Amino acid sequence: MDTSGKISIITCRAAIAWAANSSLSVEEVQVEPPKAGEVRIKMASTGICGTDDHTIKGLLSAVFPFIPGHEGAGIVESIGQGVCSVKPGDKVLTLIMPQCRECSSCLHPKGNFCEKQDVLPSSGLMLDGTSRFICKGKKIHHSFRASTFTEYTVVPEIAVAKIDDAAPLDKVCLISCEVPTGYGAAVHSAKVTRGSTCVVYGLGGISSAIVMGCKASGASRIIGVDINEEKFPWARALGVTDCLNPQKLKKPVQQVVREMTGVGVDFAFEAIGLTDVMLAAWDSCHLSHGVCLIVGVASINSKLSLDAPMIVSGRTLKGVCLGDYKTRDCIPQLVTSYLQNKINIDPLITHQLPFDQIHKAFELYHAGKTIRCNLLF
Amino acid sequence: MDTSGKISIITCRAAIAWAANSSLSVEEVQVEPPKAGEVRIKMASTGICGTDDHTIKGLLSAVFPFIPGHEGAGIVESIGQGVCSVKPGDKVLTLIMPQCRECSSCLHPKGNFCEKQDVLPSSGLMLDGTSRFICKGKKIHHSFRASTFTEYTVVPEIAVAKIDDAAPLDKVCLISCEVPTGYGAAVHSAKVTRGSTCVVYGLGGISSAIVMGCKASGASRIIGVDINEEKFPWARALGVTDCLNPQKLKKPVQQVVREMTGVGVDFAFEAIGLTDVMLAAWDSCHLSHGVCLIVGVASINSKLSLDAPMIVSGRTLKGVCLGDYKTRDCIPQLVTSYLQNKINIDPLITHQLPFDQIHKAFELYHAGKTIRCNLLF
Repeated sequence: MDTSGKISIITCRAAIAWAANSSLSVEEVQVEPPKAGEVRIKMASTGICGTDDHTIKGLLSAVFPFIPGHEGAGIVESIGQGVCSVKPGDKVLTLIMPQCRECSSCLHPKGNFCEKQDVLPSSGLMLDGTSRFICKGKKIHHSFRASTFTEYTVVPEIAVAKIDDAAPLDKVCLISCEVPTGYGAAVHSAKVTRGSTCVVYGLGGISSAIVMGCKASGASRIIGVDINEEKFPWARALGVTDCLNPQKLKKPVQQVVREMTGVGVDFAFEAIGLTDVMLAAWDSCHLSHGVCLIVGVASINSKLSLDAPMIVSGRTLKGVCLGDYKTRDCIPQLVTSYLQNKINIDPLITHQLPFDQIHKAFELYHAGKTIRCNLLF
Repeated sequence: MDTSGKISIITCRAAIAWAANSSLSVEEVQVEPPKAGEVRIKMASTGICGTDDHTIKGLLSAVFPFIPGHEGAGIVESIGQGVCSVKPGDKVLTLIMPQCRECSSCLHPKGNFCEKQDVLPSSGLMLDGTSRFICKGKKIHHSFRASTFTEYTVVPEIAVAKIDDAAPLDKVCLISCEVPTGYGAAVHSAKVTRGSTCVVYGLGGISSAIVMGCKASGASRIIGVDINEEKFPWARALGVTDCLNPQKLKKPVQQVVREMTGVGVDFAFEAIGLTDVMLAAWDSCHLSHGVCLIVGVASINSKLSLDAPMIVSGRTLKGVCLGDYKTRDCIPQLVTSYLQNKINIDPLITHQLPFDQIHKAFELYHAGKTIRCNLLF
């Protein structure tokens, strides 16, 4: 089913970040055919994740100009030489974290930070060191080798998850990132225990999926923290038992969380990417057995500075990317679980807009008025 | 078997740290009878642990003047009201970490940082807020509610482990701290896996016990790091496969460890208490699944400053105190394992000296010429 050689450049619309902090510009781009080991996808939907916003702002590793977006669902349009895990017509998700199945990370039973990833740091290029996007004669970089804010994208085969044919593509783009990152952090990485106490810092998209995971795991108390109180009703609907606005507290939020629980929480999650908030999460934990999961990606060059003598008391700090799932193996299973009504992602999708309303979608995101706004192509 | 009321003050010899960084002074002290819930112990032996040295130097939380030492073995001399887990004549170990069996830490299946601990921070007083030691008419503080550099000490019942009658008291003081802290960090807390790669920062007493634990767990490679190459032969004898002296390397030691292993180690241990070394341990770990165990106690007010964006790759940082063992439940089992030849602590005891040669023992410790020098009473 090698379609290479028979396929040509596609001209389509894509959103480009030309420079840090500039507004996204929807442009006509040329998308080259997939090379060996690559897949060209006709996008059906994409979510807008905080990481995209931070990348556009220049806070994370990125090479401008680039096409942002990584949380995508679509249909394989064509494949490069040697691609055998997907074929044209397959429904697929893009994966910010590849699974090459050959490196030391992929071969180890735990973890998923594939050595072929392009997130930390990001080269903005495909595995062969070149780009597949051109706009106005200029080379445009990829974002995390995903780039989903475009009608067509090219990604490595190792970063594509083939999913169930019955999957509704307007919704399951969330299972490309938000659901494994949030829900997975709680149920798979932290393995939140029945009756435990949890605090979730941030009540946006990823955090909402974390809350779902904590609730599904039987947590008895889920404290949600956000400075935007408009998020509190939906957070409560998802399972948050106590909402805190740190700006309205007279004490540091971690102290309030410690006082509320008496001893600190069993599990704390940070899903924003701010080191002060990571520290609050760490200091919210029970000193003896508390587990602090860092889900948010912090800005380049930032430091998380922990009180060193107290580390020995027993707490665990763990980073987690896509819920520690081996992505190609496990993410399709999450789609199947959704189709089987074992996970309900529908409450996480508060808005859907056509791709050409991407600016409105970002406005909703910045105003904290969405859990997820999916863009539809 | 309540002996309270029939027992009187004991006058004996003890080593006192009168002020930070001053030389220990062996003095005549008065040791008061145990109050309710307390146990007075005739010491048989005590180890000298790095934590004692750091406390004497004023680097850790302590209240001067105090009697240092915490790694002790002895025989119960008398008990206060209500004490029921030990009786006069019982062989016991002192415990730096109590197990009250009532607090949130003790009731949780994981961790052991009992809320009644007096390490971080240390008040230097018994649970009722008073001291049992007097010297020259002055109140002398306790150290971690253990204080083993004395012929007699008083400790809370919750910080006493009754051990097998057959235990050789000149040796098993190591099982009070060094063995659970080091060996336990590897086999119980980290659960080092067969065939894994490990790095151990520091090759002193605790680290030697870590090496033993890594080897017992079947690690395929154990890299030992120390600036004192005199420790390398005994480290190799215990199981270290590669010795590194960071002062003789042209690159940062963590970079050398990463290059030696290609991808970073599966397990890294820091047992010194220096934040730079903790950072080296963290950065020695495999980015995806590496586990960094912090066993050393850092100086008060010091900070461990981690590169924040890279946290999300998946590594785990975990503090561990006494191997996460519930102390009164598990430490006696380690003594039994030693008696049954399941753990061999003998290679860890390189020196034994009478208590009145405590200064010589510290000289040997400072020169890095001992794994452990046990002081015998």
